[in-house]
Amino acid sequence: MITQDFRQIFSNSFPFWNRLNQDEIDLVCNNTSLMKYKKGANVHGGGNDCIGALFVKNGGLRTYMLSEEGREITLYRLYEGDVCILSVSCVLKSITFDVFIDAEEDSEILLINAGAFSQLAKQNIYVECFAYQLATERFSDVMWVMQQILFMSFDKRLAVFLNDELAKTGGDTVKLTHEQIARYMGSAREVVSRMLKAFASEGIVELGRGDITILNRKKLKDLF
Amino acid sequence: MITQDFRQIFSNSFPFWNRLNQDEIDLVCNNTSLMKYKKGANVHGGGNDCIGALFVKNGGLRTYMLSEEGREITLYRLYEGDVCILSVSCVLKSITFDVFIDAEEDSEILLINAGAFSQLAKQNIYVECFAYQLATERFSDVMWVMQQILFMSFDKRLAVFLNDELAKTGGDTVKLTHEQIARYMGSAREVVSRMLKAFASEGIVELGRGDITILNRKKLKDLF
Repeated sequence: MITQDFRQIFSNSFPFWNRLNQDEIDLVCNNTSLMKYKKGANVHGGGNDCIGALFVKNGGLRTYMLSEEGREITLYRLYEGDVCILSVSCVLKSITFDVFIDAEEDSEILLINAGAFSQLAKQNIYVECFAYQLATERFSDVMWVMQQILFMSFDKRLAVFLNDELAKTGGDTVKLTHEQIARYMGSAREVVSRMLKAFASEGIVELGRGDITILNRKKLKDLF
Repeated sequence: MITQDFRQIFSNSFPFWNRLNQDEIDLVCNNTSLMKYKKGANVHGGGNDCIGALFVKNGGLRTYMLSEEGREITLYRLYEGDVCILSVSCVLKSITFDVFIDAEEDSEILLINAGAFSQLAKQNIYVECFAYQLATERFSDVMWVMQQILFMSFDKRLAVFLNDELAKTGGDTVKLTHEQIARYMGSAREVVSRMLKAFASEGIVELGRGDITILNRKKLKDLF
């Protein structure tokens, strides 16, 4: 891709674009690169890295927290046209935590490097405001997850999870192991397996090797 | 208080103040009122209320989530000079959740009503940016709470809680019942009592009627 292509995509996507002067537009475009990530690759996280703002050209990113013991809690997912701002959290002094970001499928990402984005946010209030507004949207996502974790009983949570997976992938089958589901839900494999068996005994799901077929969507939805 | 007093306080506290024109300054000051809340009073929450932006003149506010069963999880506290923006979440379209806010002590609050604040945020980007930046700071607070809840074992969490309380109130005594601690930590009274007894048997605390005295701060801190 050449700079002109970035310009085209960004001008259609960033609400602040028409508030940039020519120097600022050049600054963005000259500091953007096209990154390709394979499914499962780590994009951001761990140390004090602050790679920059990520624009998802295609594919999908999953953001999660990681405990010392390696437990993962999925916070939210980003898809085509979304912008990830927590990967440039060093620019936003109000963000004092760090998260992990993985490519959930093969993804093409436009990366605006942290230095350029920082300069832009400092000199242009519209860019700064855009960044904080995006962070606040993610705050809403995280509050939703927190409510699920704290207040929903596990059968409800699992039913919501399976339903969301179906909505995401289409069809009637969730191609995940019990281990993976436990990891995504911040639970233990045993807990997931026990609840899935209960669902199977009620005719809601059928358990296969490495996948789960939903037999009765209505009964699944009645759980939440 | 008269309008002139609000102006004095706000001009010292709001970073956007020198970006307001005279009409905007008048708009804020003419739509601010001094509210007094008794300790324990509910300030915001529940329905779709959106009272406005709250400036803590003195006292303290506690923000929490509430489950259907009445369980509370404290998200953060605000003190003198802090501004609460989640009480005006209807103005910020990126906030899609609601929280509860109580006065934790007798408090005087300057309330900028939602209509005026909304108009201000719409017409002045610096006000909008201030609001989203504040929301992002609260995002960081909530992520901290979430990490505590998800990843820390309960002895660690309780030790951190007691230590934070000491830091807040000074002295060596935490004047809270086990029931109250459980409520603040999103746990059960039995769990708190059991852990406190374990701490007492190790000589870390001494349990009184309605209070807990920390005997050995070093051992308390060693827990986290």
